[in-house]
Amino acid sequence: MEWLEQSMDNCSIQRTLDVIGEKWTFLVLREVFHGVRRFAEMQEHTHAPRPVLAKRLAKLVEEGLLERVPYQEPGQRERHEYRPTSKALELYPALNALREWGDRYLADPKGPARSILHRGCGAAVHAPMVCEQGHVVAYSDIESRPGPGARLEHKQLA
Amino acid sequence: MEWLEQSMDNCSIQRTLDVIGEKWTFLVLREVFHGVRRFAEMQEHTHAPRPVLAKRLAKLVEEGLLERVPYQEPGQRERHEYRPTSKALELYPALNALREWGDRYLADPKGPARSILHRGCGAAVHAPMVCEQGHVVAYSDIESRPGPGARLEHKQLA
Repeated sequence: MEWLEQSMDNCSIQRTLDVIGEKWTFLVLREVFHGVRRFAEMQEHTHAPRPVLAKRLAKLVEEGLLERVPYQEPGQRERHEYRPTSKALELYPALNALREWGDRYLADPKGPARSILHRGCGAAVHAPMVCEQGHVVAYSDIESRPGPGARLEHKQLA
Repeated sequence: MEWLEQSMDNCSIQRTLDVIGEKWTFLVLREVFHGVRRFAEMQEHTHAPRPVLAKRLAKLVEEGLLERVPYQEPGQRERHEYRPTSKALELYPALNALREWGDRYLADPKGPARSILHRGCGAAVHAPMVCEQGHVVAYSDIESRPGPGARLEHKQLA
């Protein structure tokens, strides 16, 4: 099955982007990964319009990436905070890979806005590709083949 | 400088998403990474609306991720194909990390649509986080600190 003959209906990238594939959702995840849990703080730090932020949070809850948990401070009404699930935390490597690319191509002359370090040894963290045999893999070493779930593309009539 | 005190104006994730942060752009990159170069083929395989696809391609050319190169087949008018630059190819690890997450959480019962393998040894390719000292880094081992380009957030007036 050639690439263009394969249906993209069950492409994992496409499905992933249906869950998180627009700017504000990624930025919400950035906030959550940095410990931010509250709507007002997310709104102020991302500058997302409030209705957009509300929609994106609802979608992430629906998809099982965030849990909406009630809390109440003395004298205040009940509010909710958003806690990441392991499904969300496992997206961190993808966000980190985007961050690394941005640091390389889009950082200020002074350097990147954040330093992402390994707490254990203080060294900078990268997002390489590594195969199960432990080889570091470059783009030119990648072989992309139809997987076990491959489907044929339904050609549209011209 | 605490996380919420830091300005996100020069956040590399935010800037990256300004370049590629919506679904169709990622899907165009998926096609390009698989050797697809022509508008009609990209359109047919992504199902992106034509005007959207044209806009996304123009943006990727403008940002230096694609080169628009003329070609002509016998008896046909001149057309253009889109070739990825190294700036684009260096986004492959980020797309691969998204793919890996999707394979884990969103694949069909039969399995993923594609198998991404190391050509050298045939083993599956993963997207771990690794520090410069060679340690594999989990989310819980990450230390995120203000970087050399860190700026203070301009608080909005309430």
